[in-house]
Amino acid sequence: MRTTIERRDLGPRDVLIEIRYAGICHSDIHTVRGDWGSVPYPLTVGHEIVGRITEVGADVTRHAVGDRAGVGCMVNSCRECENCRTGNEQYCLKGNTQTYAGVDRDGTVTQGGYSTHVVVDEDFVLRVPESIPYEAAAPMLCAGITTYSPLAHWNAGPGKKVAVVGLGGLGHMAVKIAAAMGAEVTVLSQTLGKKDDGLRFGAEHYYATKDPATFEALKNSFDLIINTVSAPIDMASYLGLLRLDGTLVSVGAPPEPLPVPVFALFGNRRSFAGSSIGSIAETQEMLDFCAERGIAPEVEVIGAEAVNDAYERVLASDVRYRFVIDIDTLR
Amino acid sequence: MRTTIERRDLGPRDVLIEIRYAGICHSDIHTVRGDWGSVPYPLTVGHEIVGRITEVGADVTRHAVGDRAGVGCMVNSCRECENCRTGNEQYCLKGNTQTYAGVDRDGTVTQGGYSTHVVVDEDFVLRVPESIPYEAAAPMLCAGITTYSPLAHWNAGPGKKVAVVGLGGLGHMAVKIAAAMGAEVTVLSQTLGKKDDGLRFGAEHYYATKDPATFEALKNSFDLIINTVSAPIDMASYLGLLRLDGTLVSVGAPPEPLPVPVFALFGNRRSFAGSSIGSIAETQEMLDFCAERGIAPEVEVIGAEAVNDAYERVLASDVRYRFVIDIDTLR
Repeated sequence: MRTTIERRDLGPRDVLIEIRYAGICHSDIHTVRGDWGSVPYPLTVGHEIVGRITEVGADVTRHAVGDRAGVGCMVNSCRECENCRTGNEQYCLKGNTQTYAGVDRDGTVTQGGYSTHVVVDEDFVLRVPESIPYEAAAPMLCAGITTYSPLAHWNAGPGKKVAVVGLGGLGHMAVKIAAAMGAEVTVLSQTLGKKDDGLRFGAEHYYATKDPATFEALKNSFDLIINTVSAPIDMASYLGLLRLDGTLVSVGAPPEPLPVPVFALFGNRRSFAGSSIGSIAETQEMLDFCAERGIAPEVEVIGAEAVNDAYERVLASDVRYRFVIDIDTLR
Repeated sequence: MRTTIERRDLGPRDVLIEIRYAGICHSDIHTVRGDWGSVPYPLTVGHEIVGRITEVGADVTRHAVGDRAGVGCMVNSCRECENCRTGNEQYCLKGNTQTYAGVDRDGTVTQGGYSTHVVVDEDFVLRVPESIPYEAAAPMLCAGITTYSPLAHWNAGPGKKVAVVGLGGLGHMAVKIAAAMGAEVTVLSQTLGKKDDGLRFGAEHYYATKDPATFEALKNSFDLIINTVSAPIDMASYLGLLRLDGTLVSVGAPPEPLPVPVFALFGNRRSFAGSSIGSIAETQEMLDFCAERGIAPEVEVIGAEAVNDAYERVLASDVRYRFVIDIDTLR
C-alpha cells in the first residue's frame, strides 16, 4: 500500500537522503505481520537503505551533499550509557532507536526505508564506498553487519574453523565474509540444494543438517558457529560440533526459549552467545572491508509493486539471496 | 559401609599415596544414589584426596617419597587427542578417566578416595604446598579448581565485577579466589543467611535471589557470573545481570535442559558457558596461588563413621562449607 509519510525538518546535525534502494529483511515481514507484538500503524518498514545525500544540516561535518550514504537498523541511541560511550551503541542500555517502529527522541515513531527520502542524524549514517553497487550495498546494512560483527568479535580468521547455519540472506553474507577473513568455512544447511552456491561464496565444506551423520562427522570441529536460523535448533547436536573454547553465536532467535543441555556446555568449555547487528563504526569497517575484498550480497532487484510477492517468496525461502526494492519505482 | 578394595600394583610411572583426608563432594552423593545413572558397585567414591607419597615407580620423576600429594577428579586421559596435547586433558575428547566410577586403561573400574591408599599415574598427582593444612587442601582438588579455572579463563581480576551464585562448597571457594584475584565480588544467595560469611570470604556485596528487587538493582552489572547451583535457574533473570560481553558460566548443572531465551543473549552480546574442573597444570597453579595468598576452604572434619550423616547435611545445605573425612579413622 502506498501512503505519504512525513519526515522531520532537517536539524543542524541531520542529513537528508534521497533513497535509491531498500533491502527486504525477514524482520520487516515479522514486524508488519505483528509477529513481534503490536505495530504502530501506519508504518513504513525497511532498514537496509542506500541513497545519496541531497541536503545537510548546518553543523554536519561527517557527510556532504552528493555523498553515497547508507542507513541500517538504528538511527539513534542515548549516547550517554556505558555502552554508547564505549562505541557499542547497538547495545545502548536504554535501547537504540530502531530505524522503523522505534520512538525517536522527539517522540515520533520512526519510519523505514521503503520510501523516497529519509532524514537521519549524521552519526548514524554510513559512507558507502563507490566500488559497491548501490543495490548490493543495501543488504550489507543489516545482513552484512549482523554477520560481520560476530565473525570479527570472535576472531574468525586464518586457522579458525567457522560453520554457518542456514544459507539465506544472512548466511550467504556470513560465508562470504568469513571466507574473506581467512577462516575455513563450512555451511550447515537443511539440504545440499544450495551447495554449488555455498562453495562459490567461499565455503570449503557443505553438509546437510537433515542427515544425522553430519553431526557425527563434524563433532568437536568448529571454533565458531554462526547460527542465522530463527527456527529452534537441537542445541545438544549443534553444541557438540564445537571444539575447545568454541562458541555458537545466534543472530536469529526463535520467540520461545531454547532448551540448552548444560552438560553439552561443559564439554570443551563451550559457549552459547548472542549478537545483535554492530556499531556504526563497525558497520563502516564492514563496508570498507567488503569494498576492498570485492564482496557483495547476491540480490534480486524488484519494483515496489512486487513487495508483497517478494514477502511470500522470503517466507518460502525462495530468494537467492536478498530482495532489494528499486525505490525509483516509487517516484 | 566398610569394604576392602584392591589397588593396582605400582607401575613404573605410578605413585602410591597414603591418604590422610578426603573431601565430600555433592557429586559423591549423586553418584552413590544413582542420580547420574547406573553405578558400578562395589564403589568407593571421593575425588578430593590428599596424603603423603610412600612409594614411587622406577620411572617417576615429578614426585618423591615423603611428598605431600593430592588427587582430584581425574586420574588419566588419552594423552593423544587435540585437547590432551594442548594441556587441556580435563576436556579429553575420549573422556578423561574419572577418579572413581571411571574405567581405567587396564579396564578396571576406578575407586575413589574414601580409602587408605591410592595408586595414581604421576602426571595426575598434584604437589600440595606445605603451608596448606592437609584437611583444607582436600576440597581444593575439586571445589577449588572447578571455580578457579573459569575465574582464570574469563579473566576475573582488578576492574572486573564477578557474581557468585550459591554460597556452598564451590561458591565459598569462588568468592575467596575471585576476591584474591582482585575482582569486585557479589554473592547471589537465596537468602541473606550467610551474608556475614560471604563478606568475610572477600565479597563486597551480598544479595538475596528470593527478592525480585535484586534482579532489578543489579541489571547489566557483571562481567562474569559463576553459577555453582545445580538446580534450574531462571535464565532470563540471571542473563539480564550481565553487562556488555559478560558471561554466565555454569559449573553445576541440572539434569534437564535449561530454557534459554535467546533474546536475553542478544542484549549486551552475552554468553552462557560451561566449565569442567581444570587441567592438572592449572590445578597446580591454583594450589600455589592459594598457598601464596593464604586462601583455604572452610572445612568440618569428620570421622569415617559420620559420612552418612554428613551426606544428609550436605543435601540439606547444612554444611559450612565442606566436609572432609579424616582417613585415619578408617585405619
